[in-house]
Amino acid sequence: MKIIKQIDKKDYAAILQRPSAIRGAVDDIVAKIIARVEEEGDKALRELSMELDGQAPDVFEIPRERLLEAASVVDPTLKEAIQTAINNIRAFHQAQLPRQISVETQPGIKCSLRYRPIPRIGLYIPGGTAPLFSTVLMTAIPATLAGCKEIIACTPPGATPEILYAFGLFNIRVFAIGGAQAIAAMALGTETVPQADKIFGPGNAYVTSAKMQLAGRGVAIDMPAGPSEVMVIADETAVPAYIAADLLSQAEHGHDSQVILVATSMQIIEATLSHIEQQLKSLPREETARKALKESLAICVKDIGQAVEISNFYGPEHLIISTGKANETAEQINNAGSVFIGNYTPESAGDYASGTNHTLPTNGFTSAWSGITTNAFMKSITFQEITQEGLQTLAPAVVKMAQAEQLDAHANAVLVRMENNT
Amino acid sequence: MKIIKQIDKKDYAAILQRPSAIRGAVDDIVAKIIARVEEEGDKALRELSMELDGQAPDVFEIPRERLLEAASVVDPTLKEAIQTAINNIRAFHQAQLPRQISVETQPGIKCSLRYRPIPRIGLYIPGGTAPLFSTVLMTAIPATLAGCKEIIACTPPGATPEILYAFGLFNIRVFAIGGAQAIAAMALGTETVPQADKIFGPGNAYVTSAKMQLAGRGVAIDMPAGPSEVMVIADETAVPAYIAADLLSQAEHGHDSQVILVATSMQIIEATLSHIEQQLKSLPREETARKALKESLAICVKDIGQAVEISNFYGPEHLIISTGKANETAEQINNAGSVFIGNYTPESAGDYASGTNHTLPTNGFTSAWSGITTNAFMKSITFQEITQEGLQTLAPAVVKMAQAEQLDAHANAVLVRMENNT
Repeated sequence: MKIIKQIDKKDYAAILQRPSAIRGAVDDIVAKIIARVEEEGDKALRELSMELDGQAPDVFEIPRERLLEAASVVDPTLKEAIQTAINNIRAFHQAQLPRQISVETQPGIKCSLRYRPIPRIGLYIPGGTAPLFSTVLMTAIPATLAGCKEIIACTPPGATPEILYAFGLFNIRVFAIGGAQAIAAMALGTETVPQADKIFGPGNAYVTSAKMQLAGRGVAIDMPAGPSEVMVIADETAVPAYIAADLLSQAEHGHDSQVILVATSMQIIEATLSHIEQQLKSLPREETARKALKESLAICVKDIGQAVEISNFYGPEHLIISTGKANETAEQINNAGSVFIGNYTPESAGDYASGTNHTLPTNGFTSAWSGITTNAFMKSITFQEITQEGLQTLAPAVVKMAQAEQLDAHANAVLVRMENNT
Repeated sequence: MKIIKQIDKKDYAAILQRPSAIRGAVDDIVAKIIARVEEEGDKALRELSMELDGQAPDVFEIPRERLLEAASVVDPTLKEAIQTAINNIRAFHQAQLPRQISVETQPGIKCSLRYRPIPRIGLYIPGGTAPLFSTVLMTAIPATLAGCKEIIACTPPGATPEILYAFGLFNIRVFAIGGAQAIAAMALGTETVPQADKIFGPGNAYVTSAKMQLAGRGVAIDMPAGPSEVMVIADETAVPAYIAADLLSQAEHGHDSQVILVATSMQIIEATLSHIEQQLKSLPREETARKALKESLAICVKDIGQAVEISNFYGPEHLIISTGKANETAEQINNAGSVFIGNYTPESAGDYASGTNHTLPTNGFTSAWSGITTNAFMKSITFQEITQEGLQTLAPAVVKMAQAEQLDAHANAVLVRMENNT
């Protein structure tokens, strides 16, 4: 880790800079993939699967029976663990279901905001080195709670039994399609893959590029993505062995993972570094973690106030607060994806089973984007109902404003309702 | 209007097709504008303003005094009308302020979802033929209620006193910059224009293209845009003169406005058409309205059920429901921007002063997007706090799942906290 022994506000931008993704080449390849799927549908999907995954199933859709059969090969203790996670995730996301808002803004003018499920949802669950069945739970549970009518998912060919089992717990149609072509298929629809109104889920650079290019065409997506990040704010009440474990759990994700320790003393930093060295040795993903740590930062700050300032400047995806007054510190956090308060709240608890969602904005997108919530699977519609008397009261304002904007027909829509009735 | 005397479900897609925007040429021009602003900042803004608007102010920022001075030239009755609108918009958007959600998912595991304002907001207010000062209210009121720290706005040089006056009612810094270059300036920041985290507001094809291209880079935007639309559902309780006025208030927006009447009888359609002809004659924007109407539809349906089906299929930006049981019909609406219930609720009431927001998704984007709400100026952060005992209970599930996903450091972050304390 790079150690910063003190830091001035003017240096935040330079020191906390994220690696900028070089996307040009990937974008060009993905643009061609999207165009092929748009023009040739299933035929393009089949060819792209052969080219990129080396296999293309005869039928893309994985039959429901295969999802249900997977239950027999998944370790029963894991199934129990998944059930615990589901219970907690469901409890927290159920509580998020939005309430209807109704206001009588003036006598006779009733305005309301009501939420409706987004009808058709597309989920992407990556394959790759770590089989992220937990992401199935994090997307399918809120989609189901929101009441979305049609939920489809794509995952690369060769999904593990755990992923198939997780899919089988929900009413989802699953297609064995991976990468950018899967995103294009769900966003645009093909002969066999139904079109979705909004696309959710993580993925590699190609998947991300496809989501962003389609977002540029108005396709709704959960959020822009980037490498995963954790920041830990620690004072002398923190336990260096815990901090070390938390930093490593982020570092093992990938060599581009961002890991930052912000501590109020050099002792904490030094003790943490020594625990990291010890813990690293027993990690199967040691090499990946070492690469990530090489680019990571340990910053010594003058006080918790500066730590909060740095955290809000950086806006980390995950923020662990291990300070004496952790709740007080948390109150001051304005930009972050998910916050872990106190010494017994490791990030991995939230990654799997505490109940919060692990699909979070990263790469500084926390300033404007939220992690996945139940709301993300819904949209709001406003309704208004005005009585004859209500319109009478409101008429002068509407007519005046419409005329000032030179929109006479707008004024007339009010006037015609008055004339006929006076 | 094109009259469809009956319609089958299989024909919805063909008959309700929206004109597809041909954006290629605009996109290329805008991509160059964005690149110039990104590379050369203010210099590019100045050159582009000269090239595209024929004028470039020495200083882009309009001094606050100029905004306040505008009050003296705005008609006092209009100021009163604006105040009425502000009161209603504020009341409805204040009620939308989201509540914090807290759940103890298991004993010792507290999860919460809290909302924070998006720090830096950029608003775009178009110039053009109709000076839309109402859009200032529709964006600045919720941004202010949400508690956003820094609100900036761009509007083309030569803003009307009404627009300046409306800006002056809020704590906003205003820049006289128009078009795609204004969007690029706010999204990327220049020497004088501060960078914004999220961009709001309507605009022409160039503005829209800039918003979408920047959205493709992860810049948060309010929603994708398209030509404005209204659908009216009418049965025999509707008043044809009112329907005609509502359709015309949409048609006057622009020749590409989408106007659709869905009625339960041909009599309603015929009576409405005759009222349209009468009302058209006195409209200053008659020519624009006639062009829009030429491409518009009047559809006769067999019953309200089919009308609802068509409406949900099309997902109109504005939906006026003039039926005997209008509230019952409204309950069944799943895809729409804003719904106007009953004979005394013209769209123009909501455009200006009922309290609802007039910045709404269009072009079919209502399936996944919402109109502007107070929430749109905020994002949510999740927080979790676990006690030692809570973690003890949750540990087996987290460890099991982490190991199954082959993320050993994730498991270790829990285990290290157990070992030290048992």
